[in-house]
Amino acid sequence: MEPVVQNLKVNADRLWDSLMEMAKIGATPKGGVCRLALSDEDKAARDLFVRWCKEAGCTVSVDAMGNIFGRRKGKNDKLPPIMSGSHIDSQPTGGKFDGIYGVMAGLEVIRALNDAGFETEAPIEVVCWTNEEGSRFAPAMTASGVFAGEFTLDYGLSRPDKDGKTLGEELRRIGYAGDMACGGRKVGAFFEAHIEQGPILEADKKTIGVVQGVQGIRWYELNVTGMEAHAGTTPMRRRKDALVGVARMVSEAHRIGMAQLPFGRSTVGMMQVKPNSRNTIPGHVFFTVDLRHPDAETLVGMGKAFQQSCEAIAQETGLTLDFKEIWYSPPVKFDAACVRAVENAASNLGMAHEPIISGAGHDAVYLSRVAPTAMVFIPCEDGISHNEIEAATKTDCGAGAQVLLQAMVERANAA
Amino acid sequence: MEPVVQNLKVNADRLWDSLMEMAKIGATPKGGVCRLALSDEDKAARDLFVRWCKEAGCTVSVDAMGNIFGRRKGKNDKLPPIMSGSHIDSQPTGGKFDGIYGVMAGLEVIRALNDAGFETEAPIEVVCWTNEEGSRFAPAMTASGVFAGEFTLDYGLSRPDKDGKTLGEELRRIGYAGDMACGGRKVGAFFEAHIEQGPILEADKKTIGVVQGVQGIRWYELNVTGMEAHAGTTPMRRRKDALVGVARMVSEAHRIGMAQLPFGRSTVGMMQVKPNSRNTIPGHVFFTVDLRHPDAETLVGMGKAFQQSCEAIAQETGLTLDFKEIWYSPPVKFDAACVRAVENAASNLGMAHEPIISGAGHDAVYLSRVAPTAMVFIPCEDGISHNEIEAATKTDCGAGAQVLLQAMVERANAA
Repeated sequence: MEPVVQNLKVNADRLWDSLMEMAKIGATPKGGVCRLALSDEDKAARDLFVRWCKEAGCTVSVDAMGNIFGRRKGKNDKLPPIMSGSHIDSQPTGGKFDGIYGVMAGLEVIRALNDAGFETEAPIEVVCWTNEEGSRFAPAMTASGVFAGEFTLDYGLSRPDKDGKTLGEELRRIGYAGDMACGGRKVGAFFEAHIEQGPILEADKKTIGVVQGVQGIRWYELNVTGMEAHAGTTPMRRRKDALVGVARMVSEAHRIGMAQLPFGRSTVGMMQVKPNSRNTIPGHVFFTVDLRHPDAETLVGMGKAFQQSCEAIAQETGLTLDFKEIWYSPPVKFDAACVRAVENAASNLGMAHEPIISGAGHDAVYLSRVAPTAMVFIPCEDGISHNEIEAATKTDCGAGAQVLLQAMVERANAA
Repeated sequence: MEPVVQNLKVNADRLWDSLMEMAKIGATPKGGVCRLALSDEDKAARDLFVRWCKEAGCTVSVDAMGNIFGRRKGKNDKLPPIMSGSHIDSQPTGGKFDGIYGVMAGLEVIRALNDAGFETEAPIEVVCWTNEEGSRFAPAMTASGVFAGEFTLDYGLSRPDKDGKTLGEELRRIGYAGDMACGGRKVGAFFEAHIEQGPILEADKKTIGVVQGVQGIRWYELNVTGMEAHAGTTPMRRRKDALVGVARMVSEAHRIGMAQLPFGRSTVGMMQVKPNSRNTIPGHVFFTVDLRHPDAETLVGMGKAFQQSCEAIAQETGLTLDFKEIWYSPPVKFDAACVRAVENAASNLGMAHEPIISGAGHDAVYLSRVAPTAMVFIPCEDGISHNEIEAATKTDCGAGAQVLLQAMVERANAA
């Protein structure tokens, strides 16, 4: 198979032009985009995507959640499709690569196959999933979630935005409430190309991140109660200063993250001190902890270690601790054959690459529940994403699409 | 002198009844009082105080800041008066002892002198200082500050409340803008009786706190800047987590306070984390530090040690530190003879007593700049003050007034 695949080349300039053309839709002053799910901008970008799919000879279909599939026939068109894609919607002040890069890279795979007149065994599909960001309709990754059976169709369509408009109403309004059932069909493999949204590839000077899976996440809420008292009249030894205890707990959370390098993550992101007055000893502190690790058991261990540390600190300092785990998202381990296909492609192409764990959620997380799945990461400048200044290079965008092409063709012809 | 003084006895029941009568004015549901400065409730309490002063045979005068003086003649009425008092105004949800106890104890001294038909050499005055709390008009201790030359009269009268009404307007409205000049006359000695507003006397089972002085206070504001980043995609080693650095700074502040037992105090009371989102590494933290010590040099050392620790932590963690001292209130050392008078009184009366440093500000701080000054503390339940549940016992209230009586007579006859 190798010789054939080596003749297939994506066109990095064409991919870049498509990205820049898409970036005009919902463009913001600082060079980003605002393309909230099912807004007029989202509709305009969908229309352009559909036009390009048709121009590339694809059959276009839309499902009940508004997911759009552009399909290129396989030699054996009964085989389940090898699918690639991501999302078109953005954060309110998002960048020009998050999501749309994966859709355009999937389209470029089809265009490159057309250029070469190359027929795959299984059909190839490029997909755009509705409402990945969750900025307008919560939760995030709604439509890939419905596709994968995580949510019911009714649940997905009834999600409201802040003005009370539902996702289903807005789909109808922009003309993307399709006839096709959402999910319930076999997918041969799903590949998602995406910018890393983190600093690792850039720092390690790698072009391709071979994504092994997605971190598990555990969220905690802690309420620590001491005794509010006068900062001047209360001797140090008679205090129950909630913030003094919490400072030690924050240091412990950090220590526990540092003990699990390189994959462990530990973040105290939110804190509220009461009464929050300069000359009053804090009587109460609320804070949140976000622990992550790709290994489920290690993550359990991190959570237990943190809870034990907090309990010991509370006891030593005479504070009352209310420790709650409020959310768990299990780690995802991508399909070994699909991950290998990505790694082989990068190796064969002589591209600097490394295994990486995704720290953010993606549509691929839900797809992995119903199809063999993997992801391809490319670097983004300074690791910045969800920001108008988000940036990636033409070369890296092309490299990621080339890896995607080779991996998809390998899987499409593997049957 | 001793035999004469020992015949003088305050009447604890009468003092208590007066306190409970005053507590009806502005009474709150939970057993406290709301008697904001120059409110109708303040006026009603002033009226009652003036009536009681007159009933005790005093000449009443009111100065331009609304300070009320009840004067009992001395044998040598040209001598500067030995003065005692505190304030009638309260916090919005204040207790029935803070301030008013010192005024009623001063009045009880005069009543007890009347009971015994005892003439002092110097005249005795009981005073109520306007707007001590600072809850309605900032700053606190306004009128004792004007009396002592800390503020000009114009400044004092022009202080606005949150609705834009000035202290001077409100004094006129309630009829307490007096003709007499504020300050500029000699005071032989000033004694202020007050509840401790802290837990020390209760814990040490002492009835009387012989107040040596008032802590110096230094206030700091710190802004710590790191880099806001995604909690999932940013490896631990690549973070600039402002809160992780600040947690260590809070622990250092605590350590520095603990290194100066028993008088040192160190409090981080206020903290604001940005962006304060569960899954974002904090890019910025603002927090305040309140350091206190009765020795000026030690306090300077505490501040320097803290700054050095913060600078070292910022450097180690790659954070940017903006460290500002925003306020300094120097320590106050009360007059040795007046403090000795309080201690002698407690000793001679066989009352359990100990030296204590005031952690809170009082009118006595300003008075000490123009007159030999001391304070008498009595215990309050659980050290709680500025709270409707603030409590003191009849016995302790009586004991404090008895000490006040003996100390004042000693100074009045010392000339």
